Amino acid sequence: MAETSARDSAEEGGRNVGICGDGGAREAPAAGGSGSIPPPTNPLVTPLLTDMYQVTMAYAYWKAGKQNDRAVFDLLHRKNPFGGEYTVFAGLEECVRFAANFRFTDADIEYLRTVMPPVCEDGFFSFLKAVDCSEVDIHAIAEGSVCFPRVPLLRVEGPLLVVQLLETTVLTLVNYASLVATNAARFRKVAGHDKLLLEFGLRRAQGPDGGISGSKYCYLGGFDATSNLEAGQRFGIPVRGTHSHAFVSSYMSFDEIIDRKLQRSDGSSTCEDFVLLTMQCLKRMQGAPSLQHWFGETNHSELAAFTSYALAFPTAFQALVDTYDVLKSGVPNFCAVALALHELGFKAVGIRLDSGDLSYFSVESRKFFRAVEKEFGAQGFGNMVITASNDINEDTLDALNKQGHEIDAYGIGTQLITCYKQPALGCVYKLVEINGQPRIKLSEDVTKVTIPCKKQCYRLYGKEGYALVDLMVGDDESPPRAGERILCRHPFSESRRAFVVPSRVEPLYKCYWSGSSGAPREPLPSLEELREHCRRELEAQRSDHVRAFNPTPYKVSVSAKLYDFIHFLWLNEAPVGELH
Amino acid sequence: MAETSARDSAEEGGRNVGICGDGGAREAPAAGGSGSIPPPTNPLVTPLLTDMYQVTMAYAYWKAGKQNDRAVFDLLHRKNPFGGEYTVFAGLEECVRFAANFRFTDADIEYLRTVMPPVCEDGFFSFLKAVDCSEVDIHAIAEGSVCFPRVPLLRVEGPLLVVQLLETTVLTLVNYASLVATNAARFRKVAGHDKLLLEFGLRRAQGPDGGISGSKYCYLGGFDATSNLEAGQRFGIPVRGTHSHAFVSSYMSFDEIIDRKLQRSDGSSTCEDFVLLTMQCLKRMQGAPSLQHWFGETNHSELAAFTSYALAFPTAFQALVDTYDVLKSGVPNFCAVALALHELGFKAVGIRLDSGDLSYFSVESRKFFRAVEKEFGAQGFGNMVITASNDINEDTLDALNKQGHEIDAYGIGTQLITCYKQPALGCVYKLVEINGQPRIKLSEDVTKVTIPCKKQCYRLYGKEGYALVDLMVGDDESPPRAGERILCRHPFSESRRAFVVPSRVEPLYKCYWSGSSGAPREPLPSLEELREHCRRELEAQRSDHVRAFNPTPYKVSVSAKLYDFIHFLWLNEAPVGELH
Repeated sequence: MAETSARDSAEEGGRNVGICGDGGAREAPAAGGSGSIPPPTNPLVTPLLTDMYQVTMAYAYWKAGKQNDRAVFDLLHRKNPFGGEYTVFAGLEECVRFAANFRFTDADIEYLRTVMPPVCEDGFFSFLKAVDCSEVDIHAIAEGSVCFPRVPLLRVEGPLLVVQLLETTVLTLVNYASLVATNAARFRKVAGHDKLLLEFGLRRAQGPDGGISGSKYCYLGGFDATSNLEAGQRFGIPVRGTHSHAFVSSYMSFDEIIDRKLQRSDGSSTCEDFVLLTMQCLKRMQGAPSLQHWFGETNHSELAAFTSYALAFPTAFQALVDTYDVLKSGVPNFCAVALALHELGFKAVGIRLDSGDLSYFSVESRKFFRAVEKEFGAQGFGNMVITASNDINEDTLDALNKQGHEIDAYGIGTQLITCYKQPALGCVYKLVEINGQPRIKLSEDVTKVTIPCKKQCYRLYGKEGYALVDLMVGDDESPPRAGERILCRHPFSESRRAFVVPSRVEPLYKCYWSGSSGAPREPLPSLEELREHCRRELEAQRSDHVRAFNPTPYKVSVSAKLYDFIHFLWLNEAPVGELH
Repeated sequence: MAETSARDSAEEGGRNVGICGDGGAREAPAAGGSGSIPPPTNPLVTPLLTDMYQVTMAYAYWKAGKQNDRAVFDLLHRKNPFGGEYTVFAGLEECVRFAANFRFTDADIEYLRTVMPPVCEDGFFSFLKAVDCSEVDIHAIAEGSVCFPRVPLLRVEGPLLVVQLLETTVLTLVNYASLVATNAARFRKVAGHDKLLLEFGLRRAQGPDGGISGSKYCYLGGFDATSNLEAGQRFGIPVRGTHSHAFVSSYMSFDEIIDRKLQRSDGSSTCEDFVLLTMQCLKRMQGAPSLQHWFGETNHSELAAFTSYALAFPTAFQALVDTYDVLKSGVPNFCAVALALHELGFKAVGIRLDSGDLSYFSVESRKFFRAVEKEFGAQGFGNMVITASNDINEDTLDALNKQGHEIDAYGIGTQLITCYKQPALGCVYKLVEINGQPRIKLSEDVTKVTIPCKKQCYRLYGKEGYALVDLMVGDDESPPRAGERILCRHPFSESRRAFVVPSRVEPLYKCYWSGSSGAPREPLPSLEELREHCRRELEAQRSDHVRAFNPTPYKVSVSAKLYDFIHFLWLNEAPVGELH
């Protein structure tokens, strides 16, 4: 477990990053099997969180007597985000919670009466009030899995009217979740498994829920912790944080520090004036020949702020060092306080850099730490944690790796949480079968043509253990078998096809919601389990598919029988033009 | 009111766009004056929706006895979004609701105990439990105003500990709100005031709340309606919607339509087989010489779907015409149904185009409508509404304007709601004064240096009625007066300054929250009032500041006294380097 080992090694090595806690989640994970399923995390997720046209269509279906036609919808993406060749699927649990608790309230119905045309018959609203998902089945790829365009993430089957009503909400729940989980996985990939990744995005998120669900899915995708307390409380994600520039500038001088006593870490005695001790440490550093060329006078209000913070958190002292000047003030001031703590038996954590040339500042800070360790015999100073923040994105991480740096942890906000490089994933929800009849949606743009039929999907693995190809087959076809040769065809490109003899065949779909049928369904895993599943899935991919730059596309195919059927239906539905 | 007149003219002209309703809002607008203020719209917005470091800082402040130091924080942006030169300020009401209801629950405190280091003293948690905003003042620019970088949108004053705790949440509430309102205003600007703008973004929004608050602030910024029912219900925004491709593909043939009766619009008689009537209309169109070159056989399952939809909504028939082929199938099928409706005294609404060349298809569809009007004397057919959707952004709108088109309404989703062009606004929250002492935050990057002091802000208008410059002055300075000459200086660039004799001076700040002081505060306007204020503000700007391409920067300045003070403080706080 690479992420955990990053955290473990940090802690075992006497490093921890700021103040942390892993408090218990507020909500119990949804029970699998026959247990009841809690409502969606966000109470705003109700059947009204949908597009108006779902309700007008519902009325038209009801009016035509089609409300109970058995329909199959596929939820799929057509393109991987961020110029990559994979997507991490997330949001499934929220979809299941939504379906399990789907019911219009009386107030919802009253509102709908006001917005629907007066011609709408009363019977429709009574019908709508009784609609639920008791006859709906949801099959899906496991949450946290690596997945690819065209292979549906969810297959939703049930009475036409209700599965149509689910469309917008499940898209809302899957699109951003999968996008930001994929983004997090990509950041993890380029940062490396030995770095601590902290999500700091809340203030720039798109609405409060963008922040909360963003924190959750970044953790799923491979981040180690969040700054967001609400997400920490709700999902049991580790939380981290120290102080901001405002804390530093809120101090004017040492006179503001009234209570200056600090007990030694072993409780053996008490330092009566910790402020005096930090000032003495600073003087000693200023007088040390090996440090003299680094700095002269530092900013004293900053030193006062650091000293005060250390008095509050002697066991977890970490300082933001760029309020006035990183190398001339912040780092020496931090070291003065850290040395004073050291004399009392405490170990400071480290610094955070939030502006400027992060490569240069981290390297220089590391040199300074080592010089202090050597000069004063302060064991462990050389490897104090250096955290970097300030608009970090994939490219910054890659550039830092190339430039060389001494950063141990990254705090990443805006670029992660808003998916700045590509802020939307385009999942769609398409009708593929009705009353057993396959349906197709054509388009001028071939990537928008849907693959008809209720389908089963498989991942075929090669001899070396890597996934070779995903294969979609009609629900009535026999599944591919390990060791048997099968023809895999590109769904739309006639000449692209290959024979595959899989060493292993993995069925991709499991049933996550079976209505009131009593059919067994998969339990909903905990967030930790999803995160671990995601990590294993990413490791199981061939590295050329998941690399950040110029990755190789993964193959997605259909069976020969499905291929023929797609093209039969296409010609059948497309009108033949007439040239004049 | 340009937006309203867009809607009015559409409706007066016998056009309306799909099915619509303006149902009442669920929540009463917050009462101003002494009334109680409801909690934030999203129940996830609680004091825990914040960064961990706010709480660690709170502990350090409390430990140092600084919790009640009187602090002033400015919330400001440093750069306008989307390459533009203005920002629409939004999110204020939610900030006020948050402050008015700020209280940690027992469960919050219990959670915080688990994540704070064990050294934290019990007294802190008891203190935290009692913290509220009764001693906090919030001054702000009016919501919906046009505003500019460096001029604080909010000035939050009160005890250091609590105003620090507000930081992350108010940033979360303002950043996305202002970003998406600005985006909506920009789309409106380029689309023109005579187009109907519909927000269709929910499915691609960043989390459910991104969708709900996005709909609200797009309406504020100038959109006419949303597809989002939850937002419609909550905020009283008009809602719109018709049907999707799935509706069309859910029909296989006419056999599925059982109840085929349709009463004439005047109730005088009943058509016993509306399906037969539409098929007859299609035949007549196919036989008409003026239409023959347009199309041959159309897709009959599409015609069945349209017919069925018209039976459900004879007064509001609008069809999505690109499921199979726009010009060969969708438009002729739509016209066949519209003609049948026409014979029974109904007026069809129009079509929606969702793919392909929108300019070409709209122009061709309009020609076809006119040809049908002429051929069959079907009055009003020529000016049926053409709505366009499909990943529309500012550039698409601009290109369509240049290419020429016949589009009356736009449905805009992804690019609007996720602010695809720039998905984050970088508002920050900076300490500018503590216990009457001005504070500054320095940075290597001069745009990140904060302007110290508790300030007042004014907008100075010139003779022609346009805003000339925004001016910040220290709170202790006398305000600028109309007709008096005043020196306005760039805050950081020594040589950039100008004398201004304003014809009018507008103070930008009003008090929106005054704690329990009893001081008067502004009422919180309704969403309609905010939208109207925004429209007036945008009209009052000089056109070169608000144009989409290469706009002119608006001037933001400080008084001569404030200028001198900034630079005095800067030199005072910045350490002097030593060259060796």
